[in-house]
Amino acid sequence: MEGLWIFLGFILTAVCVHDTTALPTKWNQSRGRPRSGTDPQFKEMFFTQILDHFNYNSLGNGTFSQRYLITDQYWRRGLGPVFFYTGNEGDVWDFALNSGFMVELAAKQEALVIFAEHRYYGKSLPFGQESFNIENVGLLTVEQALADYAIMISELKEELGAQKCPVIVFGGSYGGMLSVYMRIRYPNIVTGALAASAPILSTAGLGDSGQFFRDVTADFENYKPTCKDAVKAAFQKLQTLAQKQDYARIQSAFSLCKAPSSDKDIHQLNGFLRNAFTLMAMMDYPYDTSFMSKMPAFPVKVACEVMLNGTEVLSALRDTVGIVYNSTGEQICFDLYSLYVECADPTGCGLGFNSYAWDYQACTEVEMCFESNNVTDMFPPMPFTQSMRMEYCAKRWAVVPRPGWLKTQYWGNALSTASNIIFSNGDLDPWANGGIRKSLSKSLIAINIADGAHHLDLRASNKYDPASVVKARQQEATIIAQWVKAAREKTL
Amino acid sequence: MEGLWIFLGFILTAVCVHDTTALPTKWNQSRGRPRSGTDPQFKEMFFTQILDHFNYNSLGNGTFSQRYLITDQYWRRGLGPVFFYTGNEGDVWDFALNSGFMVELAAKQEALVIFAEHRYYGKSLPFGQESFNIENVGLLTVEQALADYAIMISELKEELGAQKCPVIVFGGSYGGMLSVYMRIRYPNIVTGALAASAPILSTAGLGDSGQFFRDVTADFENYKPTCKDAVKAAFQKLQTLAQKQDYARIQSAFSLCKAPSSDKDIHQLNGFLRNAFTLMAMMDYPYDTSFMSKMPAFPVKVACEVMLNGTEVLSALRDTVGIVYNSTGEQICFDLYSLYVECADPTGCGLGFNSYAWDYQACTEVEMCFESNNVTDMFPPMPFTQSMRMEYCAKRWAVVPRPGWLKTQYWGNALSTASNIIFSNGDLDPWANGGIRKSLSKSLIAINIADGAHHLDLRASNKYDPASVVKARQQEATIIAQWVKAAREKTL
Repeated sequence: MEGLWIFLGFILTAVCVHDTTALPTKWNQSRGRPRSGTDPQFKEMFFTQILDHFNYNSLGNGTFSQRYLITDQYWRRGLGPVFFYTGNEGDVWDFALNSGFMVELAAKQEALVIFAEHRYYGKSLPFGQESFNIENVGLLTVEQALADYAIMISELKEELGAQKCPVIVFGGSYGGMLSVYMRIRYPNIVTGALAASAPILSTAGLGDSGQFFRDVTADFENYKPTCKDAVKAAFQKLQTLAQKQDYARIQSAFSLCKAPSSDKDIHQLNGFLRNAFTLMAMMDYPYDTSFMSKMPAFPVKVACEVMLNGTEVLSALRDTVGIVYNSTGEQICFDLYSLYVECADPTGCGLGFNSYAWDYQACTEVEMCFESNNVTDMFPPMPFTQSMRMEYCAKRWAVVPRPGWLKTQYWGNALSTASNIIFSNGDLDPWANGGIRKSLSKSLIAINIADGAHHLDLRASNKYDPASVVKARQQEATIIAQWVKAAREKTL
Repeated sequence: MEGLWIFLGFILTAVCVHDTTALPTKWNQSRGRPRSGTDPQFKEMFFTQILDHFNYNSLGNGTFSQRYLITDQYWRRGLGPVFFYTGNEGDVWDFALNSGFMVELAAKQEALVIFAEHRYYGKSLPFGQESFNIENVGLLTVEQALADYAIMISELKEELGAQKCPVIVFGGSYGGMLSVYMRIRYPNIVTGALAASAPILSTAGLGDSGQFFRDVTADFENYKPTCKDAVKAAFQKLQTLAQKQDYARIQSAFSLCKAPSSDKDIHQLNGFLRNAFTLMAMMDYPYDTSFMSKMPAFPVKVACEVMLNGTEVLSALRDTVGIVYNSTGEQICFDLYSLYVECADPTGCGLGFNSYAWDYQACTEVEMCFESNNVTDMFPPMPFTQSMRMEYCAKRWAVVPRPGWLKTQYWGNALSTASNIIFSNGDLDPWANGGIRKSLSKSLIAINIADGAHHLDLRASNKYDPASVVKARQQEATIIAQWVKAAREKTL
């Protein structure tokens, strides 16, 4: 199933769907594992990792194989820094192949590059196919993941003769959150962090439940106010038809494989539709990408053009979400329940094993009670309260979420004692306003990228890059070089 | 069994032996729970605590009752700071009643005072009598204890209307280590820490395995070099008798209830004897105490006088250790195996349930491979290597210790990003040189107390206090007041 690329939803970054035979197989098959000229020849390795860092007598009194990718082709051996990507909710190759900036910077700064895969994702499944059974899934926590990285960095440095090399962590989205956490939790191991598009506030329950879909909406509205109006009108029309239970008309308007027959199906349809806009807003890059799903350049612009050029709002809406769900044009109809799965993250969990893991994290530590309300956004009202979250999570995973936990553990907005973190965010990214947008001190630096979508700065240079991201990368490079220099001077 | 007070060994602080009917009952019975004039009228309370902070699907998917003591009699309600004692390896009352400085300071600085009991000690046993079964003991970790305190502080502040009150944590010995860890781990919750006699380096595997018993020896040598010589000669004579297997003579010389009959018994005797010197060095206070065991004023001086005034070295050694093991003079003979239990902490684990817990911690996270060698110290060579530790811990607790773990988790000596910690140490305390002895920055402040034993500064003022501790407490009070003031200004 390698190369199958359906991805829907929050997943802040890429997810490659493995081992799921029930999914459509026609879309985005071509991606695979590109080995282009910019491929830095990563070696794929496995690290023997402690299964449970926090209980010496649990079932975790053992080890598992944690995947990582490594390249030393640019490294000034024993002296150059270590650039360590704190992998997020997906296959580590996807981050490695979509974070070209790290490799470009490694070439300039003579760094060793490591991409670590997060436990319970990709090939780093502690219990293989059984990892998501209730009795095994409990070892999937942020704390375990951070301890994995702390141990991995320490041991690999030893093994590779990099004891004196300062470590800079990088991450995008949830991976960026982990980078922040690594720096504040393990400053003894990590010299600095570049946290790109890391919503550390909103996922810690700080902020406003309407922010996310309001900001998705703003992207379309900013392109053209009429675009937002058209989307809103289409959802309104859908609601009218649903109220009349005119399911046949809905099926034909949206080219659904199966007619809806209940409120539940309509709810599913609304989630499916909304999710396409989420993805287009997040991936609003100035060139074609195939990161979370295959996406044209400027998908928000493309979407609005489709939306506004349509002869009828419902079919226009169908064709607009088709940018995401039917990029190759080969799909004859939409199978709602296989293309989108509702979960504890209202921005989507994707599909397959990686989505199970993310759903579990959203059910435990990572809080994403985001809602659309049709007032501050263009979507139908879709509430998702803590009590709805609790009900779902108890049923699905036999867990009770702990609101406030991330804030307690990783300081929320009380960051005054932290240092050496870059918080970069793109103004186009709906996650941006869930993160740090203003510098908090000389070494807690916010970089805002006017024309950037979701962690655009981590991507490789591209001739279509806006000036704002070029400048941001330059700033980041300069700051990182300063951190490395200061750390090196300390150890000499 | 309340009031039974046998305590032998490392336990950095007090341990009250509960629920152990096999122990001798004649010693130190009088202590109980004094309610003297200085008693700050603590209320004993229980907090509903999360059982497993790090696994949402474990057996810990529940709660337990965690004990704490609280007094608001000095508190400027809603404004004064919170002084929070991060309880260590024992009954919380013992810390509350032996840390009078905190209460005196609270009276001056209008603070709310809370003493929290560490999980798996005292009455805070998550699984009651079953807590130390292998399947239950795994939730005893430093990380769980710190998370307990983070949650408890946050919730109690809310409950008591103390949201704006800066929190200062206090702790002695292992409790002092926890205070350091709380400040570096949760600076969002804790403004500053007074860590008294906290051996954060030696217990993280940093330092020299001979340091501890060398420094115990130094205390006796510094009183009189001939004292050290006499102790060394007595151990030498014991060894000679043991080599000849003259067990009857050993029994009579040391008033043992049962004659030794093997190398194992001799090893036990050596451990028993060495441990008395450890305790006297740690508790070398200038007035009578009954903290870890009943102890006369200046026990090192008393011990040396007994040692040097004896007519024969073996009986002199017996009478010297009798200061600890037979303080009331009522003991007819020494029962080696009930008075001292060997464990994963060569400075002693004490007896009873609390000692099980400490033994487990010494078998997992807290590294104490301390050895006597008869070269740099006056004791018989008693090696305790990592491999001996591993063998013991596998057998006793079915665990494999993880050397280096505390250093990874709590930064070891890489403290440059930390702030607002006082590291106080007494020069008489054998634990002192396992801690921070030199200030690391303006806000990482070492205070060395020339005439202080184990966390003397935390004890209540006493007319016999040496000038050095009076001055240390003044410094501590000033620094803490500054921290509180600065934090309060930030929140206004």
